[in-house]
Amino acid sequence: MMNIAVAQSGGPTCAINASLVGVFKESLKEPKIDAIFGSVNGIEGIIQDHLIDLKTLILTNDDMELLRQTPSTVLGSCRYKLPDWQEDDSVYKKITATLKQRQIGAFFYIGGNDSMDTVNKLAGYFKEIDLDVKVIGIPKTIDNDLCITDHTPGFGSAAKYVAASMREIVRDSSVYSIPSVTIVEIMGRHAGWLTASSSVLHGLGETAPHLIYVPERKFSLDDFFKDVRQEMAKHKAVIVAVSEGIEVPEGVQSGVVDNFGHKYLSGIGKYLEEAVRNEIGCKVRSIELNVMQRCSSHICSKTDIDESEAIGAEGVRRALAGETGKVMVFRRVNDMPYTVVIETAVASEIANNEKFLPDSYISHFGNNMTEEALKYFLPLIQGELNIIMEKGLPKHFTIQESLLK
Amino acid sequence: MMNIAVAQSGGPTCAINASLVGVFKESLKEPKIDAIFGSVNGIEGIIQDHLIDLKTLILTNDDMELLRQTPSTVLGSCRYKLPDWQEDDSVYKKITATLKQRQIGAFFYIGGNDSMDTVNKLAGYFKEIDLDVKVIGIPKTIDNDLCITDHTPGFGSAAKYVAASMREIVRDSSVYSIPSVTIVEIMGRHAGWLTASSSVLHGLGETAPHLIYVPERKFSLDDFFKDVRQEMAKHKAVIVAVSEGIEVPEGVQSGVVDNFGHKYLSGIGKYLEEAVRNEIGCKVRSIELNVMQRCSSHICSKTDIDESEAIGAEGVRRALAGETGKVMVFRRVNDMPYTVVIETAVASEIANNEKFLPDSYISHFGNNMTEEALKYFLPLIQGELNIIMEKGLPKHFTIQESLLK
Repeated sequence: MMNIAVAQSGGPTCAINASLVGVFKESLKEPKIDAIFGSVNGIEGIIQDHLIDLKTLILTNDDMELLRQTPSTVLGSCRYKLPDWQEDDSVYKKITATLKQRQIGAFFYIGGNDSMDTVNKLAGYFKEIDLDVKVIGIPKTIDNDLCITDHTPGFGSAAKYVAASMREIVRDSSVYSIPSVTIVEIMGRHAGWLTASSSVLHGLGETAPHLIYVPERKFSLDDFFKDVRQEMAKHKAVIVAVSEGIEVPEGVQSGVVDNFGHKYLSGIGKYLEEAVRNEIGCKVRSIELNVMQRCSSHICSKTDIDESEAIGAEGVRRALAGETGKVMVFRRVNDMPYTVVIETAVASEIANNEKFLPDSYISHFGNNMTEEALKYFLPLIQGELNIIMEKGLPKHFTIQESLLK
Repeated sequence: MMNIAVAQSGGPTCAINASLVGVFKESLKEPKIDAIFGSVNGIEGIIQDHLIDLKTLILTNDDMELLRQTPSTVLGSCRYKLPDWQEDDSVYKKITATLKQRQIGAFFYIGGNDSMDTVNKLAGYFKEIDLDVKVIGIPKTIDNDLCITDHTPGFGSAAKYVAASMREIVRDSSVYSIPSVTIVEIMGRHAGWLTASSSVLHGLGETAPHLIYVPERKFSLDDFFKDVRQEMAKHKAVIVAVSEGIEVPEGVQSGVVDNFGHKYLSGIGKYLEEAVRNEIGCKVRSIELNVMQRCSSHICSKTDIDESEAIGAEGVRRALAGETGKVMVFRRVNDMPYTVVIETAVASEIANNEKFLPDSYISHFGNNMTEEALKYFLPLIQGELNIIMEKGLPKHFTIQESLLK
């Protein structure tokens, strides 16, 4: 018999709790596993021995259904980067102490790039000190920028929200008889996956978005004006999708820095709005989809949520089969009918790498997406959950604040 | 036999097309009514004789279902204020010419405040020239600021989107262990209805939004800082709902300048974010819900959509019964069970007036809402449509662009 621990880390998505359900449900089934601990605020909970017995919180199938439709991380999150244990192993000793004391034989870390780095380092350290604790990473990020995996849990739901909102914005933009430009700013600091995914509208007979700009291509304000003018000649209401991370010559990012030392990237939409107003002089507005992109579970993708649960469950099976230092990944077998298989990859090959849009997804002039991109994105947004409602609003699963303190 | 015409005007909402369905469906049933004309771009379509025979476009019950879930105005919109006919009747003559030529006996105008002014003026003019064309206004606005009516079609869906998104933002905000403030900017230039409606979360066991600021109360930056500090002592993640229209002493539109030297246009959220960062120094972010508030049909309120259809249908019955110069209104009979009746009001009493939040809805310190507000708002966001999907996204009803030109 052994216990296991699971933690959630990084920026919220709609699917992180679904992966938690996957780990939890599979562990419940497994006779070798006794307690299932949830670590509060990612790896910090392990360091500080702040664990919650999940069996006392998640009691019924209804609870699990609610968790599947609850955005963000029910166990809290962190942005904690482990030092190299060769240089400083003090925090590793704390982690080891908790794991030993709690008799934890496997640790599942649901998170993004930094978390996969943690998986890699922990597995290496445990091997070095000969501690038999399996470490498995379960990816998540709306940015979809992890290597090896076909796509990341959480991305499909974000893409579905972006596309649904974009389609509604198209309707909203087309009502007046005067020409207009609407600029929609979409998340993605280095990779343009989410912005690019708005091209799914083209598969539904929409001409919008008429222009799509991603960080993978050099952005030129002159070309942008030319593009906008060209589209204005064809369409009354021009819709532009733009990644927050495209680089503008003047550098929107130059000034403000947030509390984590990250530079402020929100602002490219407003910047381009001003630019169009000054240069073209037409009616123009910008819309920032903001955090709603990562937390709008009410319109999540069932494909995404089901896959996110499945990849968590498979992680448990892999750990029990003896794998460690691995990250769970999707391999796409087919676009139509869409089929994926779940496999593992070596964590060191995923951690600290980024995956960018392939050239073949971006149109010749770098201002739109290709048919090939459409084939990739469309399956990821399919299906809807039967959202459980409460007094007119989607119900969420939450944990008493006092338990998380 | 007679023909009728219907037009849509003002800013988009999720429910304007549902009211169109109400007018259309009721007119179909009515043996006295022959052609049902849709006027393109509001009253402009009548002025320019740009009408579409709706029976050639809306063919099936499925089309009507799609229209009910399609945001914005399928017939286009306008922002056109009629002059007083006593001063300048040239445009009235054009309108009269179209109505006579097309044998239109009743005109239904779905719109906001300005449109109700149009209803009032047209009815007055037709009386003066002794033209038997009934004019009926069907209200719509997400601002909920029309007098006499208990609430306006379109408001409930906007409130449901705001509340659902707010709840998701609450989850998104609570993941990290460090204290934070999240400021959500909500539409409403003069009246705080939509911002106030976010208080429905309190009826679902959420402590957020912890602070709610509406234009009906004088805003003081000093009091705001005091409020935020007080809430930070109680909650790790403080959520603030603020109307775009609150007045700040410094004037958001005059003072704040971004990194490029541009003045912030939309910006009370960003302004307060900066203010909190400078004064309190904690992690802080602002979110503008933007046009998604008025076009997110994918999470519309069934109560709102059904009522919007019903009020359109009742408008037709009232016109046939001989009423004119009237605006359709809701009178709430009961909160629980929620019951409304549809009546008419004299257009002149609604046009050019605004309705503000009652004092009794706003808490003593002017920074939150009362139980009474909750009772008012909660029924309006109830129920969901079975949204018809297409390749993973809500399907919309659209009219060929060439017909709208």
